[in-house]
Amino acid sequence: MLPLKSVALLLVLLASAPAPDEGQWLPEQLLAMDWEALRARGLELTRDEFWHPEKGGILSATVQINGCSAALISPEGLAITNHHCAFGAIQRNSTVEKNYIEEGFVAASREEELPAHGIVLRVVRKIEDVTAEVHEAQAAAKTDLERYQAVQQAQERIAREAEQSAADTECQVSSFFNGRKYLLYYRTRIPDVRLVAAPPRGIGEFGGETDNWMWPRHTGDFTLLRAYVGPDGKPARYSKQNVPYQPKHWMKVSGKGVKEGDLVMILGYPGRTERYLTSVAVASRQENQFPARLDIYTRLIEVMEASAAGDPERALAISSTIKSLANVQKNALGMVKGLPRNEVVRRKLEEEQEFSKWVAADPERNARWGTVLDELLALDREAAVFETHDLVLGTLLRYCPLVSMVMDLCYAAEEGAKPEEDRDRGYSDRQNRRRRRGFASPQVSGDLETVEKPVMGIVLDHSPALPEGGRLGGFDDLAQGSSDVGAMIERLYGESEMTDPEARVALFDAGFDAIRESTDPMVVFARGLASDLRRTRLRNRASAGRRLVVGARWIEAQEAWRGKAFYPDANSTLRISVASVKGYSPFDGAWYVPHTTLKGVLAKNTGEPPFNSPPALLAAARQDLGRFASPELGDVPVCFLSDGDTTGGNSGSPVINGKGELVGVNFDRVFENIPGDFGWNADRSRNVSVDLRYVLWLLDKVMPAPQVLKELGF
Amino acid sequence: MLPLKSVALLLVLLASAPAPDEGQWLPEQLLAMDWEALRARGLELTRDEFWHPEKGGILSATVQINGCSAALISPEGLAITNHHCAFGAIQRNSTVEKNYIEEGFVAASREEELPAHGIVLRVVRKIEDVTAEVHEAQAAAKTDLERYQAVQQAQERIAREAEQSAADTECQVSSFFNGRKYLLYYRTRIPDVRLVAAPPRGIGEFGGETDNWMWPRHTGDFTLLRAYVGPDGKPARYSKQNVPYQPKHWMKVSGKGVKEGDLVMILGYPGRTERYLTSVAVASRQENQFPARLDIYTRLIEVMEASAAGDPERALAISSTIKSLANVQKNALGMVKGLPRNEVVRRKLEEEQEFSKWVAADPERNARWGTVLDELLALDREAAVFETHDLVLGTLLRYCPLVSMVMDLCYAAEEGAKPEEDRDRGYSDRQNRRRRRGFASPQVSGDLETVEKPVMGIVLDHSPALPEGGRLGGFDDLAQGSSDVGAMIERLYGESEMTDPEARVALFDAGFDAIRESTDPMVVFARGLASDLRRTRLRNRASAGRRLVVGARWIEAQEAWRGKAFYPDANSTLRISVASVKGYSPFDGAWYVPHTTLKGVLAKNTGEPPFNSPPALLAAARQDLGRFASPELGDVPVCFLSDGDTTGGNSGSPVINGKGELVGVNFDRVFENIPGDFGWNADRSRNVSVDLRYVLWLLDKVMPAPQVLKELGF
Repeated sequence: MLPLKSVALLLVLLASAPAPDEGQWLPEQLLAMDWEALRARGLELTRDEFWHPEKGGILSATVQINGCSAALISPEGLAITNHHCAFGAIQRNSTVEKNYIEEGFVAASREEELPAHGIVLRVVRKIEDVTAEVHEAQAAAKTDLERYQAVQQAQERIAREAEQSAADTECQVSSFFNGRKYLLYYRTRIPDVRLVAAPPRGIGEFGGETDNWMWPRHTGDFTLLRAYVGPDGKPARYSKQNVPYQPKHWMKVSGKGVKEGDLVMILGYPGRTERYLTSVAVASRQENQFPARLDIYTRLIEVMEASAAGDPERALAISSTIKSLANVQKNALGMVKGLPRNEVVRRKLEEEQEFSKWVAADPERNARWGTVLDELLALDREAAVFETHDLVLGTLLRYCPLVSMVMDLCYAAEEGAKPEEDRDRGYSDRQNRRRRRGFASPQVSGDLETVEKPVMGIVLDHSPALPEGGRLGGFDDLAQGSSDVGAMIERLYGESEMTDPEARVALFDAGFDAIRESTDPMVVFARGLASDLRRTRLRNRASAGRRLVVGARWIEAQEAWRGKAFYPDANSTLRISVASVKGYSPFDGAWYVPHTTLKGVLAKNTGEPPFNSPPALLAAARQDLGRFASPELGDVPVCFLSDGDTTGGNSGSPVINGKGELVGVNFDRVFENIPGDFGWNADRSRNVSVDLRYVLWLLDKVMPAPQVLKELGF
Repeated sequence: MLPLKSVALLLVLLASAPAPDEGQWLPEQLLAMDWEALRARGLELTRDEFWHPEKGGILSATVQINGCSAALISPEGLAITNHHCAFGAIQRNSTVEKNYIEEGFVAASREEELPAHGIVLRVVRKIEDVTAEVHEAQAAAKTDLERYQAVQQAQERIAREAEQSAADTECQVSSFFNGRKYLLYYRTRIPDVRLVAAPPRGIGEFGGETDNWMWPRHTGDFTLLRAYVGPDGKPARYSKQNVPYQPKHWMKVSGKGVKEGDLVMILGYPGRTERYLTSVAVASRQENQFPARLDIYTRLIEVMEASAAGDPERALAISSTIKSLANVQKNALGMVKGLPRNEVVRRKLEEEQEFSKWVAADPERNARWGTVLDELLALDREAAVFETHDLVLGTLLRYCPLVSMVMDLCYAAEEGAKPEEDRDRGYSDRQNRRRRRGFASPQVSGDLETVEKPVMGIVLDHSPALPEGGRLGGFDDLAQGSSDVGAMIERLYGESEMTDPEARVALFDAGFDAIRESTDPMVVFARGLASDLRRTRLRNRASAGRRLVVGARWIEAQEAWRGKAFYPDANSTLRISVASVKGYSPFDGAWYVPHTTLKGVLAKNTGEPPFNSPPALLAAARQDLGRFASPELGDVPVCFLSDGDTTGGNSGSPVINGKGELVGVNFDRVFENIPGDFGWNADRSRNVSVDLRYVLWLLDKVMPAPQVLKELGF
């Protein structure tokens, strides 16, 4: 245990700490901060106005829609999120005649609001700490794998029980600090969400891939939705009879904007960060994972583009696939460039040395945490062996459907040979019968020549470089000691019967013994892959179970060492980032200012996608700046920068001023901040928001929606 | 004449005008400025300290070396200019064993200073106004061509007479404002210049083509030279007995640098600007000349690079050619992008309308200037027809030596048929005999297949688009109504005897009548080109003669209309630009700060050219910032921006602070300022200088030259 004096000191430190701009804080953590320091920076809300664990507060107006965040901004259930978060719903409402993606959409009245099928809106009502209960469940576990499973089951059980206790409630238990803390979230789930207004692609996606992850930015990345409930006020599936949802809390929209230096808070549901990694783990990502990912995704894009050469229909069909590949590729590029630049590994190493000295200096500390760093480093070294392996295997499973199917055939046949109760989930007799129908389908890989084989080439190119313990299962059998990838592919597809559906069904029916004895090159390879996948799954679960012990102690030791509050890694739960409107230096000799303006839109506009501003915008920008222009900038602000701590999942996050009014909608972060997932950096961690004044100007001048402006109080 | 009141008003305006940051002012103009306003900005020098038309001043330390500027910075004739200005001299001193380009050079003592053969240093001693004399000479001319010739002859005569009046003096008469003013320059010409210190290419050319015309910049673009004279103190050819030149005026070097907002002056010999063009002239350059130039130079670079593929020796030999082509190409790109962005044509049009209204509003003005704008526009419309023609013809003459030679053969034969006294200069019998020997040389175009034919392809591609009156002579005969360039080239080179030296000599000997009757395709084409060249030369002279009248009246009218002093277009004479250290916004959302630092060098360094910092620099930058670091920046400043008005020829220009001390050496301007040749722009006109603190730090820590630092007072 910590000496009492240290504990007391720690509590004092926690209570008096001013909220730093680094951190994706839990609501309870923010309430524990030095509120006076926040008031000095411009916060006017009281703790209770901001958030009460039982009653909610302005923070409750921050909702989750699918993988994104959003804000409720009127008493009539109006919500704002990013255009890219609502993209699917806009697309599903579009036809060739009414193409809302290209043309944009504005509902002239409530009746015209379109069902945004596929979008579900979740409002957090209450948060409870259930750490003790989960820890109790895990105490009896004897192995890492048992521990992992016990915790999974406890989280599931607690959530289901809580759902019984309240009507119209969806519950979830989330784990923090490698299982050091568990919180139970009570949420209202609203499945009837409608489309109110979305800008044309030439605004909502202005700049496209070119500007993605970049500053300066000129994207009007917003869409307005409305939540509907049954006439009784309770969540209900879509129905004409449904009425607008009346939230307990909603945010007022400000038309006044923020200036450089102003306090802002970014509220939302960040998805995933890895801030407490060891030097070994970051080094492995920097040296192995991200370079491999960059190469693989660059080549995947080339394969996809080549597969659609001269085929405009296919080009259209795969455009969103390419968009998402390009997003991962640019992220990987940012990591490859930014991790060394930020010297994350060096800093981690220095910290680990300091930490080790601090532990060694005190017998009590030594007894408690003397081994924790070494244990964690050992886990990370083990994980490093498999990091690129998992990426390569994942690429194969996703883009080589024929080989993946044969691998699944091998896996299912092996499971099928066991009694049903001993099998992995998903391999019951009933499920295997459905699988068998799939094996019989002639059309497994429609793009065998143009996609599967080239991607297999990428996979096989990367396989020889995988470290000894982390080779791809089946690869050595396929390679037969040669490095001629062309020959491997020829053997794999040219000498296999598995391209024939009947042969696949016959093999499956023949059972696992037949598979084990097969010399068909694809079966041999797939058999190896199936064993590999089995080992990978078990290894990952056991590793997660081990980390529930070691990782939690690591955080505990870190808190004791640093004597400060820690925010947990992002895990798609509700968080708060405290920030300032602030520019940054992308490189020596340059400073990025924190606002862009309509002038910049005009300068970027080429008339061709992704820089094709609609004529209505061009006309209004030249003639009619109107009431939402900033006097300081002499123009309508378009986007702004702040040093918020954000990541994926913060898309659509409300950005509020000190009064709790909405001033922006977060939608990206800057290129130099891509490695921010591994560590916040005061000089370069900047998030990008669309300025609410731009949204209001668009609703006023370009895609007129007077009824919406009225509802928002303008 | 102007009404007296206007003249008086004008003089008042001139005398009291504060020196604006726009303008490449003549020394006499700067002396006429509001000196108090300059003192308020930080100038501490008196008028006499700065410049006296008879006695000189600090400005006299600004010297000219070949096409560049330089500064005398010690009483022992030490001079500083750009690395790229001294490049040829460094190269000529280099061998494979002692490669001063790659390794840099520092003379450990005076004895080790190397002759910089090819470099001549010129010091302006005195300037006289000779306008009346030239105007008198031109008064009798009856035609535009006569006027042109009379002025040329008068300038030549006055200069030669002045040279007789003083020993060791070189004189030149320069024309300003289209011949509205003529100044006679007395200069000391010093032919013995030596190399004192030059950084390695990895400093002096750091960033290479990539960074050329760009900010942020990290180039240490400087070289130290020393002027030598005979033991009697008079200019002399190189000799071991020569001694360091002791200039009457030299600049003190400051180690303290300048900060954002500080006054600086850029002194030097800007080469060519066109600030007083009409809307028609700028539009023609924007729409015709620069796009054609961009295309031609882009393709010339491709041809050159392809011609050296797989041949490293040739690649090395043509690297400086490619460098200079790339420089023109990037300039053209800057024009193509920047002229529309700066809306130069629109502004010119508006000004011309305003001017026309002002003239029309007053009968006296109308009588005097009622037709001047129309006359000028008519001249510019005529010139526009030939603008791209001249570019295309020039490309052919420069890069297609065989066809050029045959064209010269035709031209010379036609001249040769006249009595010697009626011929164009350069076509005497003696000169034609030398020519004939050239025609007999077998090795005219060593790169016929790899360079001449591809370049001819570029020329012929551009020919059909030339306007009706400005077609390339001989093209229609060659094209024979087809647009098949491949076929034209096949005909031109494949069906001609002119590839055979004996056939060329025989044709030349046969005389002009034989040429006129030849049906050899290359002779037919070359005959057309020769007539074209003849017409082009005459047209350009006549046009220059016409502009001596119209252009001068245009400036006069402009002065009367605007009521302010005008600076003349750059013409390689000594000028002063008054400026401030200042950043700029290259695009919406970004601000370029006015200083770069060593940190930026380290960030750009890749170890590969052009970003290969020498190891000594890397080591010193990491460990030893020393006494020349800026406390404000916490680093050694490398380059800085100011809003100086500069152009080509300002390379090597001294940049002085308010005390007249050297703080920088100008070497480039920013990409957004390329169209500055057509009009200064307060938002984007920025010149780039190497910070003297970087130079001193390099001489202190990286390429140690303690004796030089001592000579400079450190």
